[in-house]
Amino acid sequence: MEKKIRYRKLRRDDFSIEQMAELIRKGSRVHLAKGITLIESNRLEDFHKGQELLKLLMPYTGRSIRIGITGVPGAGKSTFIEKLGTYLCQMGKKVAVLAIDPSSTVTHGSILGDKTRMEQLSKEPNAFIRPSPSAGTLGGVHRKTRESILLCEAAGYEIIFVETVGVGQNEVHVRTMVDMFLLLTITGAGDELQGIKKGIVELADGVIVTKADGENRKLAIKTKNEYNQFLKFIRPNTDLWEPKAFTCSSLTGEGIEEIWAFIEQFNHHLQENHLFHEQRKKQLKDWLLSSITERLRQSFFEHEEIKEKLPSIIEQVTEGEVPVSTAVEKMLSLYRK
Amino acid sequence: MEKKIRYRKLRRDDFSIEQMAELIRKGSRVHLAKGITLIESNRLEDFHKGQELLKLLMPYTGRSIRIGITGVPGAGKSTFIEKLGTYLCQMGKKVAVLAIDPSSTVTHGSILGDKTRMEQLSKEPNAFIRPSPSAGTLGGVHRKTRESILLCEAAGYEIIFVETVGVGQNEVHVRTMVDMFLLLTITGAGDELQGIKKGIVELADGVIVTKADGENRKLAIKTKNEYNQFLKFIRPNTDLWEPKAFTCSSLTGEGIEEIWAFIEQFNHHLQENHLFHEQRKKQLKDWLLSSITERLRQSFFEHEEIKEKLPSIIEQVTEGEVPVSTAVEKMLSLYRK
Repeated sequence: MEKKIRYRKLRRDDFSIEQMAELIRKGSRVHLAKGITLIESNRLEDFHKGQELLKLLMPYTGRSIRIGITGVPGAGKSTFIEKLGTYLCQMGKKVAVLAIDPSSTVTHGSILGDKTRMEQLSKEPNAFIRPSPSAGTLGGVHRKTRESILLCEAAGYEIIFVETVGVGQNEVHVRTMVDMFLLLTITGAGDELQGIKKGIVELADGVIVTKADGENRKLAIKTKNEYNQFLKFIRPNTDLWEPKAFTCSSLTGEGIEEIWAFIEQFNHHLQENHLFHEQRKKQLKDWLLSSITERLRQSFFEHEEIKEKLPSIIEQVTEGEVPVSTAVEKMLSLYRK
Repeated sequence: MEKKIRYRKLRRDDFSIEQMAELIRKGSRVHLAKGITLIESNRLEDFHKGQELLKLLMPYTGRSIRIGITGVPGAGKSTFIEKLGTYLCQMGKKVAVLAIDPSSTVTHGSILGDKTRMEQLSKEPNAFIRPSPSAGTLGGVHRKTRESILLCEAAGYEIIFVETVGVGQNEVHVRTMVDMFLLLTITGAGDELQGIKKGIVELADGVIVTKADGENRKLAIKTKNEYNQFLKFIRPNTDLWEPKAFTCSSLTGEGIEEIWAFIEQFNHHLQENHLFHEQRKKQLKDWLLSSITERLRQSFFEHEEIKEKLPSIIEQVTEGEVPVSTAVEKMLSLYRK
């Protein structure tokens, strides 16, 4: 009985957007999660509600450090975030994680539930973990990640980690929405990887060689030194900043303190050189342009005449009666009429 | 002097689109490359020329098997394609490869030139290799890969390989443009990888465990057997097809013949069960929908009033004077007016 009442109390419909915004600001993790779900929703009704929520919360955003964490699968991203996040929570800081939930693309089922990843961190009252299914996203970067960051900021989170799987394009995308970008790597990765990695290393403000424990520790230190050599020769992504490499063990905790000092130093560097404001301006511009594209698509596919005619056009194209380019121009002029 | 004349002769402007189409059909690799460059170009003028070229060549497309090759960096994709491709060329078949060229995202410079990858295959007169920079693409899948496939078909290529880096979203995307999808993997990949891989395995028509040579051979066979066990439990992506796992060595050539027989068997399966036509219909639908989105974006950003007003809107948004959502709606109504 109590369970039922509790469920009813939590239903989205029972709250106005104003109440939701208020509860998010007051730190309700449940409502923050609901807010993100609303923002991520594909329903038109939810879209407008989500925009309203965002408008109400905008004045309370901007006061966090946004940190992108990238690396190939198996680089130890989630254990690193868990370790560093727990360390920060225990210092009294509020930490939000927009994480990847590896999921099946065909069945859309999540393989690892949110409980099984970052178990320790998820117990911290000062932590908020939001897993996004990797299906339908770019290596874990949801098309609404930007908006989710803002919601977390309005809820008072001071450090926001955005986890992403690294292959090239994702990083460029994530780089435009965070202040700092850290590349996680392990020792002994393949040769082909090196080529792709160079482009990613150029985007990074720091490199972390993970799993520096046991027999692997020596090798990890060697890899770190190689990275430090390499980092001297690339053009840093952030003006006047010298990226550095670290080793780290999520098992022993080695390196965590040092890395946090490095992050604080970076943040200070941004503030001191007026780069913080510049970076945030760039982030806003990129957000605007990608929002336009998305809104454009939405408006097109919701256009009454398009909705009516699209099925027959698809039929004609797939039967080979009409070339794709002709169909595209036809649909576009219908939309713009 | 001769070099200069040769350069002039090859200049795009010296050829009409009709001549270009004719030369591509006659098998000129130089003109096929030029055609793809035209299709990939971001200039409006080139866009229309590219569409014209495509229209002229459309009647000669459709007669190839389109094979997507995926796997994490280091899985041995390019050496596998080189080995299989050379084998096929020596059988007298025409093979096209739309490959990834790992490139730097910041400097936009290519690290590995086209010469250094697939060196052996590139010497075959029956092979055409087109590297796409991985920067600005989705794990090597260029937004114009579909059109490039069609151009290769018009040029008479019978087997078309599309190489892609695997992390999740790319595969879903590539899956919609190929007939067959092969996952390449190595032994002993990390645990986190397994989670993401499941979704990809579900998309695959076959799994190939690479680097099955020397000390690694035994382990590769073990991994292959594990995959065969696993494949029994997943829902195959292609109707009535039972995906299988193989081992392969690009060093010794072991497995290549067997894998080609498997591909031919798959092709036969598609034809026999009328799945080929169904798959191609799906591919056309997906192409239509993604073309609409792209054309929509292009038409928006080329709109005279948008071009005029966008800079000041960007300024207002980045200075925090106007919220992103308001700016988006304003721009959209301007466009649709």
